[in-house]
Amino acid sequence: MDSDAKNPSCLLYGPLDARFEDRPVPVLSDPHDVILRIAYTGVCGSDVHFWLDGGIRTYVSEARPLTMGHEASGTIHAVGSAVSSLVPGDKVAIEPGYPCSRCERCKSGRYHLCPEMKFAADPPKVHGTLSKYFLLPASFCYKLPESISLSEAALMEPLAVAVHAIRLADIKPGSRVIVFGAATVGLFCAAVAREFGASTVVSVDILEHKLRFAQKFVGSSVGRTAMPDSSLTPEENAKRLVEEHQLGEGADIAIDASGAEASVQTAIFALRMGGTFVQVGMGKRKIEFPISELCEHEITARGSFRYGAGDFDLGIRLVGQGKIILSGIITKVFPFESATEAWETAKRGEGTKTLIEGPRN
Amino acid sequence: MDSDAKNPSCLLYGPLDARFEDRPVPVLSDPHDVILRIAYTGVCGSDVHFWLDGGIRTYVSEARPLTMGHEASGTIHAVGSAVSSLVPGDKVAIEPGYPCSRCERCKSGRYHLCPEMKFAADPPKVHGTLSKYFLLPASFCYKLPESISLSEAALMEPLAVAVHAIRLADIKPGSRVIVFGAATVGLFCAAVAREFGASTVVSVDILEHKLRFAQKFVGSSVGRTAMPDSSLTPEENAKRLVEEHQLGEGADIAIDASGAEASVQTAIFALRMGGTFVQVGMGKRKIEFPISELCEHEITARGSFRYGAGDFDLGIRLVGQGKIILSGIITKVFPFESATEAWETAKRGEGTKTLIEGPRN
Amino acid sequence: MDSDAKNPSCLLYGPLDARFEDRPVPVLSDPHDVILRIAYTGVCGSDVHFWLDGGIRTYVSEARPLTMGHEASGTIHAVGSAVSSLVPGDKVAIEPGYPCSRCERCKSGRYHLCPEMKFAADPPKVHGTLSKYFLLPASFCYKLPESISLSEAALMEPLAVAVHAIRLADIKPGSRVIVFGAATVGLFCAAVAREFGASTVVSVDILEHKLRFAQKFVGSSVGRTAMPDSSLTPEENAKRLVEEHQLGEGADIAIDASGAEASVQTAIFALRMGGTFVQVGMGKRKIEFPISELCEHEITARGSFRYGAGDFDLGIRLVGQGKIILSGIITKVFPFESATEAWETAKRGEGTKTLIEGPRN
Amino acid sequence: MDSDAKNPSCLLYGPLDARFEDRPVPVLSDPHDVILRIAYTGVCGSDVHFWLDGGIRTYVSEARPLTMGHEASGTIHAVGSAVSSLVPGDKVAIEPGYPCSRCERCKSGRYHLCPEMKFAADPPKVHGTLSKYFLLPASFCYKLPESISLSEAALMEPLAVAVHAIRLADIKPGSRVIVFGAATVGLFCAAVAREFGASTVVSVDILEHKLRFAQKFVGSSVGRTAMPDSSLTPEENAKRLVEEHQLGEGADIAIDASGAEASVQTAIFALRMGGTFVQVGMGKRKIEFPISELCEHEITARGSFRYGAGDFDLGIRLVGQGKIILSGIITKVFPFESATEAWETAKRGEGTKTLIEGPRN
Repeated sequence: MDSDAKNPSCLLYGPLDARFEDRPVPVLSDPHDVILRIAYTGVCGSDVHFWLDGGIRTYVSEARPLTMGHEASGTIHAVGSAVSSLVPGDKVAIEPGYPCSRCERCKSGRYHLCPEMKFAADPPKVHGTLSKYFLLPASFCYKLPESISLSEAALMEPLAVAVHAIRLADIKPGSRVIVFGAATVGLFCAAVAREFGASTVVSVDILEHKLRFAQKFVGSSVGRTAMPDSSLTPEENAKRLVEEHQLGEGADIAIDASGAEASVQTAIFALRMGGTFVQVGMGKRKIEFPISELCEHEITARGSFRYGAGDFDLGIRLVGQGKIILSGIITKVFPFESATEAWETAKRGEGTKTLIEGPRN
Repeated sequence: MDSDAKNPSCLLYGPLDARFEDRPVPVLSDPHDVILRIAYTGVCGSDVHFWLDGGIRTYVSEARPLTMGHEASGTIHAVGSAVSSLVPGDKVAIEPGYPCSRCERCKSGRYHLCPEMKFAADPPKVHGTLSKYFLLPASFCYKLPESISLSEAALMEPLAVAVHAIRLADIKPGSRVIVFGAATVGLFCAAVAREFGASTVVSVDILEHKLRFAQKFVGSSVGRTAMPDSSLTPEENAKRLVEEHQLGEGADIAIDASGAEASVQTAIFALRMGGTFVQVGMGKRKIEFPISELCEHEITARGSFRYGAGDFDLGIRLVGQGKIILSGIITKVFPFESATEAWETAKRGEGTKTLIEGPRN
Repeated sequence: MDSDAKNPSCLLYGPLDARFEDRPVPVLSDPHDVILRIAYTGVCGSDVHFWLDGGIRTYVSEARPLTMGHEASGTIHAVGSAVSSLVPGDKVAIEPGYPCSRCERCKSGRYHLCPEMKFAADPPKVHGTLSKYFLLPASFCYKLPESISLSEAALMEPLAVAVHAIRLADIKPGSRVIVFGAATVGLFCAAVAREFGASTVVSVDILEHKLRFAQKFVGSSVGRTAMPDSSLTPEENAKRLVEEHQLGEGADIAIDASGAEASVQTAIFALRMGGTFVQVGMGKRKIEFPISELCEHEITARGSFRYGAGDFDLGIRLVGQGKIILSGIITKVFPFESATEAWETAKRGEGTKTLIEGPRN
Repeated sequence: MDSDAKNPSCLLYGPLDARFEDRPVPVLSDPHDVILRIAYTGVCGSDVHFWLDGGIRTYVSEARPLTMGHEASGTIHAVGSAVSSLVPGDKVAIEPGYPCSRCERCKSGRYHLCPEMKFAADPPKVHGTLSKYFLLPASFCYKLPESISLSEAALMEPLAVAVHAIRLADIKPGSRVIVFGAATVGLFCAAVAREFGASTVVSVDILEHKLRFAQKFVGSSVGRTAMPDSSLTPEENAKRLVEEHQLGEGADIAIDASGAEASVQTAIFALRMGGTFVQVGMGKRKIEFPISELCEHEITARGSFRYGAGDFDLGIRLVGQGKIILSGIITKVFPFESATEAWETAKRGEGTKTLIEGPRN
């Protein structure tokens, strides 16, 4: 890379204060690393929180300035001397966090819980993907099959979130599943549940148009939709859900991808004895939780955190083989310089997934 | 059984209204059933709730009158024609609920979640063990080894509760465990965790004398104790627990056998990334729950409901082989006629486990 | 049922000696039982062995005479007083073995391993389904959806065999699978593996026409076929399989539904490190087995025995929802009186699945 | 390290041809590596095969010359710049193989199956521990608690082999276990099975004195011993084992640490329906295997390969806490220069474990 090379980046300095600056071009020091040129970065709900608050929770002040972005795709620009799986020009989706590879968690296959995880745009230390060049280990780049475009590749990150959640939910052929929330992650959870063999997947949302899209996206063979009645209690809504969709003694699995307190409560009440709940969307820090239901129905409730071993691989395989069709998910693409506009669009809840292009020069 | 036989029983008619009456002696109709003569019935926290409120929740009015009691031991009095595993005179601990054996839950090995479970003293329908004669399937009677007395045998039920919880917690050799609550079930959870190979088991309680007993009961090789500081938040108490007992990044497993909201919260904060929480004691219907912790630390939270396949077998084996020593657990034994006094004793929190003898005549 | 009712049955008296006789019509004694009128019985490889040898192994002499048949469908004729899930006239597939429901194995969810299993046509004691009337517990009858005919329903038994094997194999979305044998069970294993999300399923057989059918049956999205080269060693054939079908470091899962020694050996050599082998077809009692491969590649080898909890349910659901299409599997249907001809047809390896109708009168 | 430093090593040049030479002192290049000074190296059965044959199988010719040894302990001599967990002077047991940390196997927690594993003294490339200095990643060094000496620390490798096998066997409290072979690994398997809660552990060997030691080592509470009768078939020996040790319908778990064909066969026949077999000792490449037993009893047979995530940690914890007492295992210690004598001693089957000291200068 020539020494004049620049690395234009979009940095957050504080609430509603993003600036475009040149940061140092990354340098290959570890022989297993690669540098890629970013093609697209997707906008995630957490990006909107960052944009509005200048960070998340305690991290706010330490985070500044931090390059934003973590749902990304790109083209390999340079590879370390020990990299044999990739060559410059390869198109990849990236897993935007990488662990130490040495601790107990990493050794035992749960590297995503590594206490030393370096995650893109995660305060206080790691810069994100809204830049021209981005460095990471080759083993966290996933080469795309012909059938996946670079813009679709930016969706592999939220898809991996869904794959991870569905794996934790232990969905199997014949499972009856409810997914709360029909935004990107909720939609992906429903589609991945279908691919794991669920015989019924009920998508729940409070917006009619999201349910219409969910029905089309998940398909009529297993997809169903439901809108909760805001005049009913969670327990009543759960009862209605189970009856209307003939879930017998209750759903086998319920997944919350909405982060709404009422969704979590409804989910717990909608499960059969011995059912499983997975929380994948995050909202409030604390909620009122029906703990006696957990006991008396011997329910398992699991938090799902990001993604780990094999999640990107499977997501890419499902899309690559045409089992999950992404058309309609990407609703708007902004040029790099309009990143803040992209966040504003996502803030207003417009469309499903908004992308930001990488810098053109 | 001669036709004049009587079945003296202790029935609850309403709050603080228990009456001693003769109920019909059970008759063997299913060839796989047995009738036993009850030796002892233990007093459980739920008995105290029944005694004070006349029932639990929605069941209150329908429950009356209902024979009380479900933690029981006895001697086989008569066996059905198809029973080969037991003969009259055999001493047994009983599993006081039996399922339909035909539904999906029963077939798949989770019979304790059978929707048609018939559980002793469980409103609105099933009579309990505070009677002279009690009928149940032979396969839910567990023959005692020589080394377990009939009074100790009444402890096999709360021990099975603990075995079930520890199994759900998936405790393995080397696990570091915290158990909240040092009453009977909490003590048993700690001892069973030790037998599953836990390298550290910290018992937490708010009463000094309970912790002293826990330390002795669990033993110095793995047993530790801690008292939460009521002036601290759950998060702060969790941090202190982890530091004082050198639990590294947090406990692998936390079990709540106290039913206290603060215990549940402390438990969740005290876990390492990827840790497991099991709720075995029941208290309030709803609590404030740190759901974002569940996600960000990818915690699994499981409700534990009663006991199921193999739980009584293992509990009895652990006691029979001398691995768990019960001395000191039974603190008072009341004659049948003083059952209400036994409940009052338990209500006042005196001692660890109170027993009621079966009717002498 | 009127007292003159007859129960025409096909009994085996010895090698090549089957006789049609009236046996007693079964009587409902257990209130949970039903009597059905048999519609169809499928012919299984083990039936052919029985027909030729008069039994299997040590059972030969004790087995005679024994009503043959165990892959069956029928119409409910009468129901016990406690049966609420079925009424006369209902069409069902049957699970032809039922356990004691009381032993350790039954309680823990592996009832198919119950030592007291009563399995149709299983020497020395239990009569099979080649009769007009057949009695079994209602909970082992599976009501058919509209979309499954009574002749197809007789295929639910071998389909359950395949579901059981695939579950033991722990096939998950993305798994790469090899199935040895493309007769009924092998075909079903391949299709069920596809429904569990396998990304590649290679069917292996030594007959070209079976492979052609397999390719069509499994479908082009994941189905592949291969014929071993009899001039190569198992290790060489394994290597070729892996290379030709781009299985990388080896298959994740290999299933033998052929019973051939060379297939088992090839399967073990074709697995990746940490792969899983499942034996579902049975052939020789003992074979030469590459045990050092098992160790050095840390392979898991599992025997799959019949079917258990949930296997019929899932098979029926997969067919009922149209995910597995059965057309072409049933290649010939014989009237009851020609049962021996059906066995001879199966013996000659003609077609895929041969059925025998139940007695018309 | 001063530039004159020498690294005396014991290299194998061919069958019975070992030579002591100075090899280059390793140099810290990766900042996560450490160099240790070897204290002891244990002699393993595979070392004896190497010594006699000059290698193993296909590797023979490529292997020469190769530094021998892989069961080792030592003192940290130097640490890389990024190592914070160890300082020079720390005493450690070592895990003598380290994986790439980047492949699918490594990421998913089965790093011991990494195709790029670098394992000490494993032909054709990696030098072993019979040298003064040895380099490996810090994360594969396990700091010893005070209570474990450097000579005992050399036993942590075979102990990890046993921990790995017992974990694969899924031994739980109450399991009834048979272990074939009472040499080091078999003894350790039996003791670790006890620590996992096995209620009975039967050690089987053909040498009386080994059984006597096993009885003492495992202890009378769960330990039992048995000698097979060479005049009986494996099936008959299995039956006798089950009857004599009251294993009911058969053992839950059987482990072969002997590598003998008859042991594997006896193990399979001695299991109950649904039992698990684990092969940990390696002997012949192929054996005659009762495959129909695997099917009809739905047995799981697993190969156990070396050790992986958490195995050293747990072994060291069990010894450090005094749960496994090593006294009597080490029967002879040879100075570095007498390494060939150590192999000869092991070849003759003398004693249990033979150690070789690291070079003194």
